Amino acid sequence: MKSQLSVVKIGGHVLEDEQKLSAFIRCFSELPEPKILVHGGGKKASQLSLKLGIVPQLIDGRRITDQPTLEVITMVYAGLLNKHLVTQLQATACNAIGLSGADGNIILAHKRPIKNIDYGFVGDIEKVNVEAIKTLLNGSFVPVCCAMSHNGKGQLLNTNADTIAAELAISMSAIYETTLHYCFEKNGVLSDVTNEKSVIPHINQKSFKSLQENKQISNGMLPKLTNCFHALQRGVHAVHIGAISMLSNTSNLYTKITL
Amino acid sequence: MKSQLSVVKIGGHVLEDEQKLSAFIRCFSELPEPKILVHGGGKKASQLSLKLGIVPQLIDGRRITDQPTLEVITMVYAGLLNKHLVTQLQATACNAIGLSGADGNIILAHKRPIKNIDYGFVGDIEKVNVEAIKTLLNGSFVPVCCAMSHNGKGQLLNTNADTIAAELAISMSAIYETTLHYCFEKNGVLSDVTNEKSVIPHINQKSFKSLQENKQISNGMLPKLTNCFHALQRGVHAVHIGAISMLSNTSNLYTKITL
Repeated sequence: MKSQLSVVKIGGHVLEDEQKLSAFIRCFSELPEPKILVHGGGKKASQLSLKLGIVPQLIDGRRITDQPTLEVITMVYAGLLNKHLVTQLQATACNAIGLSGADGNIILAHKRPIKNIDYGFVGDIEKVNVEAIKTLLNGSFVPVCCAMSHNGKGQLLNTNADTIAAELAISMSAIYETTLHYCFEKNGVLSDVTNEKSVIPHINQKSFKSLQENKQISNGMLPKLTNCFHALQRGVHAVHIGAISMLSNTSNLYTKITL
Repeated sequence: MKSQLSVVKIGGHVLEDEQKLSAFIRCFSELPEPKILVHGGGKKASQLSLKLGIVPQLIDGRRITDQPTLEVITMVYAGLLNKHLVTQLQATACNAIGLSGADGNIILAHKRPIKNIDYGFVGDIEKVNVEAIKTLLNGSFVPVCCAMSHNGKGQLLNTNADTIAAELAISMSAIYETTLHYCFEKNGVLSDVTNEKSVIPHINQKSFKSLQENKQISNGMLPKLTNCFHALQRGVHAVHIGAISMLSNTSNLYTKITL
């Protein structure tokens, strides 16, 4: 039987609010090992960009990453936010080790080819280095991965944190029973977006279809759920979507997604 | 017999010149493993500080580190420069993994007590986590350490890169025959500062005394050499001082310091 692994992705809202962050740190520290944390930090990157006179350009939420923007992202994701998380986790005896995709060659990608839009230094993932991550997990480290990959030829690349979390979970499923946790602003997938208590506790492919037909899923949630099923089809054991509290054993308020 | 370990510290001049940096990357990649790289990046940090309207304050070359300056340092040292080094090393098949002192709890420090000067968030090293570093080295990783420590209670601290390199080398000497390499602008310790070829090939405690008496050592070099002897007395096998080229087997032009 495979041992269990948790891959947790936190959204920017957690990183921008010290109170939420300290609540998250507590919950994540209590989660049994082995575990991996993945984070982005787009808002903070945009703030630094503006301070430096670089106007952030986003298309459908995806950042156009020219050279100055890549430097900003490297400073904010791999520097400021990653080390803040690592230092806070270390203070709760969670042996965090911060990583970009270049560190230990853990996430290899290629620069996205130019079609209609030139995204610049944005990476599409080719390979997750399962062996390197396993070595770190076996060494009792808790990897904290920021939303960056590299091309193996000396180029760092900006890669969406949701995608990194999903690809990590998919690849690690080869050797672990992996659960992917998406922590976000809501308590889970809601049947009524105005009611935080209307969390749908379980969605599978069949119920997803009927929820779609009855238009009970918001447009913003649809691509997220499609990605979740994609991850499940490629080997991930389960995907949990909800607020920070879902990481603690006491909370049952989140959406569990299985095939 | 202990196996050999190299701890290499590079100065800011290497990080600020892409040509020197690529020469360094080649030399460092060819150095046999296990090996550890340590870097600072003060000049780049000062440049970003000024862009953000923070005036850098330095006393005897030591940076006064208030909260905004600590954030700049975290972005530049742990983010921009560390990931640039790691990504370039990965392109030469050197399995670099970037670390601050908080990552894997590798360098524990305390905030420097206020005496005449309040240095702010500057850390004096208490403990190097030899076991964690050994785990990484045994896992075929090459640690690339930036000039930051943490206090274990959630606070990152700014710590001089020369000191980090020395303390790493001293602590790792418990299990490795460790050579500490200080790469700097000159070819070595010069008997005539105006002549780059006047490298003193070997200095020991006895010859150091006579060099001092004959005033053959520049004032800038004196504290550096005193620190080298301090490291040797605490277990480091040898200290090499010189230019990048000393890392390659072909160069004999550097200063070797032993007890």
